[in-house]
Amino acid sequence: MTRLTDAEAARLCVVLVRARNPANIGAAARAMHDFGFSSLRVVNEFPVPLEAARSAVDASAVIAGATSYSTVAEAVADCTLVVGTTAVGERELRHELLELPAAAQRLRAGVAGGGRVALLFGSEKTGLSNEELSFCHLLLTIPMYEHEDMRHPSMNLGQAVAVCLWELVRDRAHDQAPAPVVISGLDAPPADSASLERVTALLTEVMEATEYTRRHAANCDPAHIRRLVRRIGVDPVDAPVWMGILRQILWKLGVERK
Amino acid sequence: MTRLTDAEAARLCVVLVRARNPANIGAAARAMHDFGFSSLRVVNEFPVPLEAARSAVDASAVIAGATSYSTVAEAVADCTLVVGTTAVGERELRHELLELPAAAQRLRAGVAGGGRVALLFGSEKTGLSNEELSFCHLLLTIPMYEHEDMRHPSMNLGQAVAVCLWELVRDRAHDQAPAPVVISGLDAPPADSASLERVTALLTEVMEATEYTRRHAANCDPAHIRRLVRRIGVDPVDAPVWMGILRQILWKLGVERK
Repeated sequence: MTRLTDAEAARLCVVLVRARNPANIGAAARAMHDFGFSSLRVVNEFPVPLEAARSAVDASAVIAGATSYSTVAEAVADCTLVVGTTAVGERELRHELLELPAAAQRLRAGVAGGGRVALLFGSEKTGLSNEELSFCHLLLTIPMYEHEDMRHPSMNLGQAVAVCLWELVRDRAHDQAPAPVVISGLDAPPADSASLERVTALLTEVMEATEYTRRHAANCDPAHIRRLVRRIGVDPVDAPVWMGILRQILWKLGVERK
Repeated sequence: MTRLTDAEAARLCVVLVRARNPANIGAAARAMHDFGFSSLRVVNEFPVPLEAARSAVDASAVIAGATSYSTVAEAVADCTLVVGTTAVGERELRHELLELPAAAQRLRAGVAGGGRVALLFGSEKTGLSNEELSFCHLLLTIPMYEHEDMRHPSMNLGQAVAVCLWELVRDRAHDQAPAPVVISGLDAPPADSASLERVTALLTEVMEATEYTRRHAANCDPAHIRRLVRRIGVDPVDAPVWMGILRQILWKLGVERK
């Protein structure tokens, strides 16, 4: 059974994307502190909400150590598993969608494997955009009660963070045996997000240089290409091989590299 | 394992004792709504906080139906099981103290038995007093991380309610027959061997046409290329996309297809 160790908990990053309310950032940080997590990353075009959360009277050590990013790409660059949270289950990008208990097992397996994993929460109003979701390997949803004649409920951001983190640590309190999980079916850890971005960029160049983009425009939305690369479980050993193949194609086509 | 039915959920009362912050009352109500609970009882000497929570813009049906009491005794009068929450584990009253997962089982057993049960949360600052605890049959604590050299952490009221209610319903989600949707990605069946062979053949053509094979001969043994393609977990939906990309490369290179 997987119990989360301190070292494993340290490899889980909570990433708040476009959180607007400093109180929610503070609440997320407090839940992290309560359950033994420390790595908070905040993605915002402007650093104002994080600064406001830092100046709150009950700001925690987690907030003090939080790092600020301007894009999701930078925030997850060193992560080998990126999990996005969603209330409704985005289907457009054909992500695997898991309910919280199953997703928590995958997150635990991710940190147990030695990689850094990211758990993304979108803005209070709109959640994660399709572009932001395209950085994710899978999606997590907290199953909620389906009220008749009502919109699907969504959770308060601070509460959603607390519930997810509780699910991650509850086995530490309460002995249970989650089934062993293999993330990619490979022995090697998956490539980190920065490597996948480099593969994505090269593939995009190839698709443009070969006019694939012109002929199959529907497959060429940047978010779709990113997902296509995420779905193939490129490992760190193979990533340079794929890069080499793609570079060679561009060289042969006589493309001046950007 | 007991699954919570709607009728059982209706018999669980969340009792907020001396909650001072209307936003916290609202957050508790929102979590109740999210997880399918409806019976909220608020104990306050003065009804001001509940009234303020009622007037909040996003006030829920739960808040609208909340009842106000001036004492814990009245609020739990019709309950056959009363469970108090505590951060530190009050022992003075020699209560049975259970961690959340075990306490949740008792709460589920309580409503399953046909009785009305109460789950008490104390004020944000002081928790439940000894006098208030004296109405409880047992105490529940959410196990939290023990930080060295720090006071025992306490949870935000709205987050504590959300975590407890999630624990009460998580088996309903978790036990349910197959998770809602598996769209693609890691759980999709992998492409069959014939598809993978077609991808392999095309990739081999591309590697030859671009002279990759000449420059990186070590990567180009047929078995190596086959393994490279196997290691990427191409699913049946993506396989034709990859074939299209590879065909387009060959077309652009002016390669006469075999």
